[in-house]
Amino acid sequence: MRLRRKKDTQAWLIAQDRLVVWTPQELKGKWRSFFGNDKPIHVELGMGKGKFISELSAAHPEANFIGIDMYDELIRRAGDKAVAHRMELGMDVPDNLCLVRWNIERIEEVFAENEIERIYLNFSDPWPKKKHARRRLTHPRFLKKYVTLLNENGDIHFRTDSRSLFEFSLNAFADMNLRMRSISLDLHGGGTPPGHVFTEYEQKFMQQGMPIYRCEVVVGRAALARHEEQVKAQWKES
Amino acid sequence: MRLRRKKDTQAWLIAQDRLVVWTPQELKGKWRSFFGNDKPIHVELGMGKGKFISELSAAHPEANFIGIDMYDELIRRAGDKAVAHRMELGMDVPDNLCLVRWNIERIEEVFAENEIERIYLNFSDPWPKKKHARRRLTHPRFLKKYVTLLNENGDIHFRTDSRSLFEFSLNAFADMNLRMRSISLDLHGGGTPPGHVFTEYEQKFMQQGMPIYRCEVVVGRAALARHEEQVKAQWKES
Repeated sequence: MRLRRKKDTQAWLIAQDRLVVWTPQELKGKWRSFFGNDKPIHVELGMGKGKFISELSAAHPEANFIGIDMYDELIRRAGDKAVAHRMELGMDVPDNLCLVRWNIERIEEVFAENEIERIYLNFSDPWPKKKHARRRLTHPRFLKKYVTLLNENGDIHFRTDSRSLFEFSLNAFADMNLRMRSISLDLHGGGTPPGHVFTEYEQKFMQQGMPIYRCEVVVGRAALARHEEQVKAQWKES
Repeated sequence: MRLRRKKDTQAWLIAQDRLVVWTPQELKGKWRSFFGNDKPIHVELGMGKGKFISELSAAHPEANFIGIDMYDELIRRAGDKAVAHRMELGMDVPDNLCLVRWNIERIEEVFAENEIERIYLNFSDPWPKKKHARRRLTHPRFLKKYVTLLNENGDIHFRTDSRSLFEFSLNAFADMNLRMRSISLDLHGGGTPPGHVFTEYEQKFMQQGMPIYRCEVVVGRAALARHEEQVKAQWKES
């Protein structure tokens, strides 16, 4: 992603000593004490300009959020957005949100086993060429990492506009024997769900009338047990 | 489906004492001896006018095929088509194909447990209204029957042009904890696979440029074990 560099990004970033974490690998296994509470930790891998995680974290004080992306400029924009969004709502500077510049290739250096409760993958780069399949964030080599990092309530929430990435991902989930649910081939087709938080891409694609694909993957043991109960009840009714 | 009734359908049907079976419930558990061999039995549920099963059975003498639908007129058309297709190819009247008029609601009255090796569901009625969901052939109440009827090598091959039916079906497979593979959101997008046999609907929809959705469900224990090996090898390469 190419972004025009805002003035003073470097200085801005250094000044954000709570919102932006520069050495996240030092917090591996210690994120709870960093946030100062036991709330579940939700992580967005590839947050882009940060609209989604800014708005989601403001709407959900019952969880802690970590947004990850690779470039200084994205961290800056996401930080600006998070602060501005809270100001609009008359809220303080976020204390349940943290922004991290890191390469997702090495995500296991930032989180310990079972440290995360949810992973959001929103409009990840589809890497359409077959030779780049390993870079897709739903490739089994990434999925194996996610399964390790997620806790007993853990799940993955995945959204994309890319039919080819969605197809690839469904097959990867199935092949890894992961439990899918709430698969949607046109998320907004029957009306947008209440409380839905849009990403930048999602708004753009929706305006163009393109379908949005979505799927959840239930990973943690306790989450799976609860899910089984829901499934039984749901199909009994139908 | 409304069809113009051909002349003499009743007489034609009665004359087909081998190709058309009128009392399939009497063959429950005895289909192998009906065909006179131990070849695996592949069943198409909802064969329509029978193009698919006529052509597939002619191309695959190594299996036995049973096409099922609810109306005399469809049995007649499928029978005509099967005989004509074999004549074109210079082949005899089909001995590995059998047509059955039956309501799939009571499929378990026609087949014993483990008697079938494959079920084809091609362009099944999507029953788009929510109140008709139970009639969809991928509803869990049907899936439970299929699982019982399929043998240790058993699988389900499912194709549709209906996005909503495909979405419903993926969720039903996932909720029943069935193992999906080869999920495709645009079957012919990357070129039609070699040896692919089209259905009537499929040709029509493809000409209109609509995507065809496809998925396999691996059911039998031996099939699952083989599949696991393939999955391991496949992702190791990528």
